[in-house]
Amino acid sequence: MDKKVEKKLDDLFDFFREIDKEKLITRQTYLTGAVRYENDAEHAWHMAVMTLLLASYSNEKIDVLKTISMLLIHDLVEIYAGDTYAYAGVSREDQHNKESQSADKLFGMIPEEGKKLRALWDEFERADTPEARFAHTMDNIQPMMLNDYTRGKAWKEHEVHLHQILKRNEHTAEGSEVLFEYAKKKILAPHVGREVIDD
Amino acid sequence: MDKKVEKKLDDLFDFFREIDKEKLITRQTYLTGAVRYENDAEHAWHMAVMTLLLASYSNEKIDVLKTISMLLIHDLVEIYAGDTYAYAGVSREDQHNKESQSADKLFGMIPEEGKKLRALWDEFERADTPEARFAHTMDNIQPMMLNDYTRGKAWKEHEVHLHQILKRNEHTAEGSEVLFEYAKKKILAPHVGREVIDD
Repeated sequence: MDKKVEKKLDDLFDFFREIDKEKLITRQTYLTGAVRYENDAEHAWHMAVMTLLLASYSNEKIDVLKTISMLLIHDLVEIYAGDTYAYAGVSREDQHNKESQSADKLFGMIPEEGKKLRALWDEFERADTPEARFAHTMDNIQPMMLNDYTRGKAWKEHEVHLHQILKRNEHTAEGSEVLFEYAKKKILAPHVGREVIDD
Repeated sequence: MDKKVEKKLDDLFDFFREIDKEKLITRQTYLTGAVRYENDAEHAWHMAVMTLLLASYSNEKIDVLKTISMLLIHDLVEIYAGDTYAYAGVSREDQHNKESQSADKLFGMIPEEGKKLRALWDEFERADTPEARFAHTMDNIQPMMLNDYTRGKAWKEHEVHLHQILKRNEHTAEGSEVLFEYAKKKILAPHVGREVIDD
């Protein structure tokens, strides 16, 4: 086997081994049945499948492979930076700085390919393209959906208020107006006033 | 909201809820550190990221989005059919029949989009296209890699022999000769003769 190819594959397989840790990064959302918390790898998988089936509801035409790639890798930075709960009150800047250092370390393991992943992650963070906007719509609606399936268990435990959820979702319609309208009506509204979400 | 769109989204979100169960389908492979078994959703996510970075090593040019889509959905049938361990001795035909019924039920929840997912799953099962061949290469190399990271724990527990692994991998090189050569040399060979894998 060509030595250069072998070295390249050594680096890539070291990277694949390192990202196995994403399966142990626990989120604050419960799986259906509330048997346990979801982890980042499961979250990414679920959003990728949803994107396959929901891409046509994007406000703007999107490159589906690019959007799915972004969703598959966007939480890798949490391997070193940890998960930050949406309603934890951590400043967006502090979180971004910590995650940015994590991205340098992780994507630096595979310099050439890492540049492409870093660019994808930066684009997700900037949220300034149709793909990144749609990815954020998925990233907000998927946990909302799991909260619905578990009768708002995580919202209740964290005493999340409706105004916090709406603030968190202030840009969700920018990826897909139809999906955010649907989410508000069918996923969020049924819980308001049922002592799960206060307003 | 348009009634037809709302009905369509109701069906899709019912499907997204149902596939949440894939996160509870346990495989026989351990995660790095052997803390617990991997599940099907994590397995799919890991292979999808690997495909993003390894597609250029495919023997034939592949459509990356199609390959990743196939990998993301190919184990959904296990939600009703359960996971069949690679070395369990179940006949391929029995397994396929059980999984085929599961596919009818699950993909039938979303008739229009389900047809496309069913076609992708059938293609994976037939393994007669470049994308399906590469997907099988990932499906064989990813658990081999996890076995390597855990010092062959699952192989040891199931008393798996080298000839069984090679038989299981008789088509792996058809997706990528380079990756199978690398896997044999760097992932498999170090365990042979170390009392982990007998020959």
